[in-house]
Amino acid sequence: MSNKDLKCGLYVDHTGDLSSAIQNATNGGYNFIATNLVNPRSNVFTPHSDLLLSSADWSTLVVGMITSFDLESKVLENSVKMESEITYAVHLGLPALLFQCPTSVSAVSQLSRIINSKLTFSGGFQNLPQFWIQIPIHSPLESCAVWRNDCQDIPSEDTWFRWHRLRSHMAVDKRLSIALELNGDLPDEALLNRWTGEPIKAVILSTSIFQTNRKDYPVLTKAHQMFIRNLMNKMSNDIHFIIKGHNRHTDMRHYIQYLEHIRNTQLPNDPVAKFAKGYEDFLQIPLQPLMDNLESCTYEVFEKDPIKYEEYGKAINEALKDLDTKDEIIIMVVGAGRGPLVQASINASEIVKKRVHIFAVEKNPNAVVTLQTLREQRWGGDKGTEFAKIDVIACDMRDWEAPEKADIVISELLGSFGDNELSPECLDGVWSYVKETAISIPSSYTSYLAPIQSQRLYCEASQLREKDKPSYSVFETGYVVYMRNFYGIDAPQPLFTFTHNDLSLKPSQRNNSRFKSLDFVAKVDTVCHGFAGYFEATLYKGIKLSTVPTTHTTGMFSWFPIYFPLHSPLFIKAEDTLKVDFWRLTNRRQIWYEWLISQPVPTSVHNPNGRTYSIGLL
Amino acid sequence: MSNKDLKCGLYVDHTGDLSSAIQNATNGGYNFIATNLVNPRSNVFTPHSDLLLSSADWSTLVVGMITSFDLESKVLENSVKMESEITYAVHLGLPALLFQCPTSVSAVSQLSRIINSKLTFSGGFQNLPQFWIQIPIHSPLESCAVWRNDCQDIPSEDTWFRWHRLRSHMAVDKRLSIALELNGDLPDEALLNRWTGEPIKAVILSTSIFQTNRKDYPVLTKAHQMFIRNLMNKMSNDIHFIIKGHNRHTDMRHYIQYLEHIRNTQLPNDPVAKFAKGYEDFLQIPLQPLMDNLESCTYEVFEKDPIKYEEYGKAINEALKDLDTKDEIIIMVVGAGRGPLVQASINASEIVKKRVHIFAVEKNPNAVVTLQTLREQRWGGDKGTEFAKIDVIACDMRDWEAPEKADIVISELLGSFGDNELSPECLDGVWSYVKETAISIPSSYTSYLAPIQSQRLYCEASQLREKDKPSYSVFETGYVVYMRNFYGIDAPQPLFTFTHNDLSLKPSQRNNSRFKSLDFVAKVDTVCHGFAGYFEATLYKGIKLSTVPTTHTTGMFSWFPIYFPLHSPLFIKAEDTLKVDFWRLTNRRQIWYEWLISQPVPTSVHNPNGRTYSIGLL
Repeated sequence: MSNKDLKCGLYVDHTGDLSSAIQNATNGGYNFIATNLVNPRSNVFTPHSDLLLSSADWSTLVVGMITSFDLESKVLENSVKMESEITYAVHLGLPALLFQCPTSVSAVSQLSRIINSKLTFSGGFQNLPQFWIQIPIHSPLESCAVWRNDCQDIPSEDTWFRWHRLRSHMAVDKRLSIALELNGDLPDEALLNRWTGEPIKAVILSTSIFQTNRKDYPVLTKAHQMFIRNLMNKMSNDIHFIIKGHNRHTDMRHYIQYLEHIRNTQLPNDPVAKFAKGYEDFLQIPLQPLMDNLESCTYEVFEKDPIKYEEYGKAINEALKDLDTKDEIIIMVVGAGRGPLVQASINASEIVKKRVHIFAVEKNPNAVVTLQTLREQRWGGDKGTEFAKIDVIACDMRDWEAPEKADIVISELLGSFGDNELSPECLDGVWSYVKETAISIPSSYTSYLAPIQSQRLYCEASQLREKDKPSYSVFETGYVVYMRNFYGIDAPQPLFTFTHNDLSLKPSQRNNSRFKSLDFVAKVDTVCHGFAGYFEATLYKGIKLSTVPTTHTTGMFSWFPIYFPLHSPLFIKAEDTLKVDFWRLTNRRQIWYEWLISQPVPTSVHNPNGRTYSIGLL
Repeated sequence: MSNKDLKCGLYVDHTGDLSSAIQNATNGGYNFIATNLVNPRSNVFTPHSDLLLSSADWSTLVVGMITSFDLESKVLENSVKMESEITYAVHLGLPALLFQCPTSVSAVSQLSRIINSKLTFSGGFQNLPQFWIQIPIHSPLESCAVWRNDCQDIPSEDTWFRWHRLRSHMAVDKRLSIALELNGDLPDEALLNRWTGEPIKAVILSTSIFQTNRKDYPVLTKAHQMFIRNLMNKMSNDIHFIIKGHNRHTDMRHYIQYLEHIRNTQLPNDPVAKFAKGYEDFLQIPLQPLMDNLESCTYEVFEKDPIKYEEYGKAINEALKDLDTKDEIIIMVVGAGRGPLVQASINASEIVKKRVHIFAVEKNPNAVVTLQTLREQRWGGDKGTEFAKIDVIACDMRDWEAPEKADIVISELLGSFGDNELSPECLDGVWSYVKETAISIPSSYTSYLAPIQSQRLYCEASQLREKDKPSYSVFETGYVVYMRNFYGIDAPQPLFTFTHNDLSLKPSQRNNSRFKSLDFVAKVDTVCHGFAGYFEATLYKGIKLSTVPTTHTTGMFSWFPIYFPLHSPLFIKAEDTLKVDFWRLTNRRQIWYEWLISQPVPTSVHNPNGRTYSIGLL
């Protein structure tokens, strides 16, 4: 979805000659115009005739600006007028409508009701346009006050609240988004970043905020550049730019060229971003590898990770070196899949020149076919390789009766949230066939949790609703997702740790239930839409894998984060402590998570008894 | 449901001899005991054997007290222990379980998760007991501090928050309620009243808070008496009393007798309460008299109102007197039903001795049969009575082409919320057959709105959920209900007024859409579960009907209030302004209400486009 063509529009005052206005704009390289459908100075409703343009042109070239009626006086009368304009825009088939967001509480409430009635109307409207709410990033009144002596008592306004108030009144809907108007002044960084958790579909730039460089071209300040680049990145480049005001430079075309320049000088895509292209903010149900068998293509994707198996290789090297034995070293790869860890073990045996006997244990009969083929064709069959002898065991690791006891147990059972694919339970199952001193690779892992603001992810979850399931269901499932359009309310903190330093303990001596309460602090007024989950694993000694943003293993793409929603978005004030309680619970059939927020306000328990989301043990 | 026998239980410490304890209690007149199932001083789980009592006795005589485990340390271990006790109590078939509500945020969260997992467990538990959460009405620590010198820095605690926090974590469920423990100290009246909006199923009274009167009997302070009487009334007498502590008076029986005395000295039931018996807090879908025809029994019930037709009679008298004409006065009773207003008009004509011609217009063909029968048998047929000639017109008042123009138009089209049964639209329909000076009875009416706290009503609404409808549906409908278990957050305020002082205006000159924003102020920290709606109507000049609590027409029972829920309960801080926006919207097919809260926090628009609740015009 990234790397789309830059979409640029021109803000045009109401004009009698719409066709020429469009012609001028497209001649200047613009993709569309944003203009009033109705002359704002006329008292009568005389919109552009639908015969002016073809349907195809109406639906691509014109964003309709809806008149900003006074919704505080003559409420009912003006509401009817606004509804007529909207209905007319729907009749024309416009792709998007632009609404000035009012400042007053009461006018916002009126506008919300009107737009919401369109969003929730089930009776008609096959092709409802997008609703873009125009919000200035900085209060124009405040900006203005800086330059004047006669208005010093302008109260400071956080314009985000106009949007927050408006969307809180409305249904969660993808068609509702923001047209963010940048002024010359930008707010503090924390406030800027918060916008990256909102659905921004358009950015409105006045020509007056452009400066002129030495070659007479329009440029923006470093701060504006960085913010726009950040927005492009967070919105996966699915964003429209609208240039407003008269030409202050040589050619209107230069504004587009400058924005293209900004886009093209984004940071080069890292391997993860390249791998994830098209999956930005797309929710996936986590794998259930114990209950379901993975498919060949899934194995293939994960085997391509350039970093993960390198790190496993290093860990196996170190472990082999540390095992001070003259005998053959027994390695068990539990959950061997299509063999990448077997291969890594063979490689390691050659590097450290130690004899190993590798048991590749795999429950998926389809993957076992691959393992057996590899054994014959690549791993020397019964004879083995120079240092390694390989046996393929078609068996669930928890049921296997092994002929020998292992020195090293290697597994790759981690999910996006660490223990969520039941690595702890699976490794508990090897107790009967490991030496007391056996090394587990990985030796431990810890899940991480961070509160996030993301209208987009919450909206995506809400759209997964199935008719015959309760509406809360979609909000108490964990989703694997390459998150882009989100704002991190606070840094991730460690949650549950599992350590496998004594593999030979009997399952009855272990308890894989966990509970932890975490305190986060919001930097700015924000809305929590749930939590992002990550993990960090220690393979062996200092060798680690991490998906935690601050320590992310560079270039590794095997895991996207996990998203745990909340039943309802939760407003949090700056400096408020957000206390979340998280449980990992188990019974004989399944494990599941439950979570709730207890501060600043108590929310419901999510996913009680694992009623919606659980990971099956059988 | 009221006037049930008083249900009294005895709080008994864990005993080895359960049968004797029960015997002693029942001999003393008590209905049940509340006791620990497990010896709290034992480390091993050794509960009473289920063989001690028959199933019938377990299910009626024993309320199980669950051990107050420390849920802040050893969380997972103690949770498992508590779950075992609960499961065992379910096994015994106990009617109710009593839980001490912890004070700390984190322990409340743990207890919530445990109880919620039982409430939401779909797999078993045919007969889940009630869960009674024991909350002291006043912090015991604070009460204690008054008498000691060594603990002066006890922070003031509003114990309601323990409950509020707990229930906020849990599913809305009728089986979850409060066992309110009264101490010697009672909080302020505002705080006391707030409890009447909570589901209180039990009141725990220590024998130590009883005083001794001159005859050596136990009595309570006036304040305690009043509060208990208030609770009995608000809970429709469906409440259990539990006496705790050793006997400080002659006979344990005297405590019961005293509580019976309090109950029997409640205010004598007013006619409304008598009429409403069995309908307390029972939600009914409002009538749709335009779309549906009322049934005979419905007419019969409303005709029995002792006050309503008296007031109508007075109004008709006054109107007849005021009409200074020698001609026959034309009265049209529009929506005549089974004729009570026709009869009232005939009576009035005799009192003021003026000749009238009454047209009884009725669209319901079944009621028309009654009207025609009455005309023949009681109203003199074609000849009429001494002063009145009656014609029955089988027609919708909005379609009738009348032979003459009316002097007086009499109707009874009001619903619980005034205009919600479309009185305005119906009376708009008479414009073509009224004189310009025609009098309408009623001449005007105004709806009233008040925010309420009522876990009970919200819970009742949530239980009406139908599987194939969205979960929000039950929370955006108006319900007619005789409200008992609620707390009024602020006094009702007038909302929409309709005035019929010029009946001859054409419908095109009218607009029955309305909008109003109301500001309420909370006296104490509270939770808003929606709004109570009432109305006040002026029949003619000073003659009024009102269902607004402060001005309620004494003895009139024709209307219960209406309840408009919110999608989610909303916490409101003391002194916070609660701003609600309310719309009455119309199109050609229906009218509907939409509502939202914009302060202190913005909520979603309820009932957009009347998607859930609308009143049909056709």
